[in-house]
Amino acid sequence: MSKASGQIPRETIDRLFSYMRPLLCMVADGTATVSSRELAETCGVNPAVLRKDLSYLGKLGKRGVGYPVGELIAAIRGELRLDCAVAVALVGVGNIGRALLEQPRLEFEGFRIVAAFDNDPKKIGTTVGQTVVEDVEDLEARISSEGLELAILTVHEAAATDMARRLGNAGITSIVSFAPCRLVMPGDVKMTCLDLSLVMARLVYSSRLGGSNPTLHRNGESG
Amino acid sequence: MSKASGQIPRETIDRLFSYMRPLLCMVADGTATVSSRELAETCGVNPAVLRKDLSYLGKLGKRGVGYPVGELIAAIRGELRLDCAVAVALVGVGNIGRALLEQPRLEFEGFRIVAAFDNDPKKIGTTVGQTVVEDVEDLEARISSEGLELAILTVHEAAATDMARRLGNAGITSIVSFAPCRLVMPGDVKMTCLDLSLVMARLVYSSRLGGSNPTLHRNGESG
Repeated sequence: MSKASGQIPRETIDRLFSYMRPLLCMVADGTATVSSRELAETCGVNPAVLRKDLSYLGKLGKRGVGYPVGELIAAIRGELRLDCAVAVALVGVGNIGRALLEQPRLEFEGFRIVAAFDNDPKKIGTTVGQTVVEDVEDLEARISSEGLELAILTVHEAAATDMARRLGNAGITSIVSFAPCRLVMPGDVKMTCLDLSLVMARLVYSSRLGGSNPTLHRNGESG
Repeated sequence: MSKASGQIPRETIDRLFSYMRPLLCMVADGTATVSSRELAETCGVNPAVLRKDLSYLGKLGKRGVGYPVGELIAAIRGELRLDCAVAVALVGVGNIGRALLEQPRLEFEGFRIVAAFDNDPKKIGTTVGQTVVEDVEDLEARISSEGLELAILTVHEAAATDMARRLGNAGITSIVSFAPCRLVMPGDVKMTCLDLSLVMARLVYSSRLGGSNPTLHRNGESG
């Protein structure tokens, strides 16, 4: 974490998150250094804003050479407290759960699914990607023994509310749900639903309007 | 569309989108009417703000009785130009594509996948959900003949950029991508990436901070 931590404006923190994706893409493409102008353009921010944001991370980059992409990612991860891989529980090994278990990308991005649960006897005990599917009855014990804080919920909508409560009771503090319904959670459990219909509705509206779309620069980062 | 259209503040439009999900959940639960207090609480907004927002839609609801959920949804859909089901093309029938084709929810939410494409000869011609998978070579012709404007991209990251460009050239103006990379698109094509890692990173940061999470009230609506 940089020395400046705690004094960094909320808006800067918010933008640091959105710089991560383009930087990870650059790593994947083999790009070693990036200029502030280039990165600003990819991220859709003013170069001066970007330079100011990155200045909070300490001394990085050289004038005329640019920022070393790897160091920049490490510095941002440190600031955002994501410098150690975050262990994740996945609940529901349907099509979407399977897709997440089978792609190695999450690991590269700082997350590691360490346990996957389902209630289907045919799935329990099978290996998907590199993870053995466990009985959802063992959920609480495993979450507690692993000390997990983050879960991905990929169960059917009808099961989502119950499962989210169980996760909260088991000690999970952050949940991302692919089931779109709003779930009322205890105050210390934070949940985000990836709401495809809502994203599509906003896109279509904005597109039909023909204007720019200022609503797309938060969770569903637009390109 | 209400008479007030065009004069509705941007912030109200933005919130109208976020009222849709709780209202759809209420319909699914069989709830016929909802009070402004109740709806405001579910949506996490001030009741006065909600009442003001809904007042732009014309005369709806009765004092002491509440808003009729069905009418409210119809009025919001009208305002947001989503009163007719939006036809969607889906590109990539992998795990996620399959999940979307097999669940009837999107239809209920105002979207209908009318064409699905893949390049795998084993998949082409098969029916998933109720949709016959077509050869991706026919993409341009089909999009043009159906006059489609919206596409869901569920191909592998490596194929996403090319495919997004093809969609744009074929006349698609809105794309939601499950591949997380930023894609540089022509100005008139709007794209949103559902970025799971980014959502998780924000959640974990906010949760570790222990504070409220003001970043979660856009695309990835929090509950």
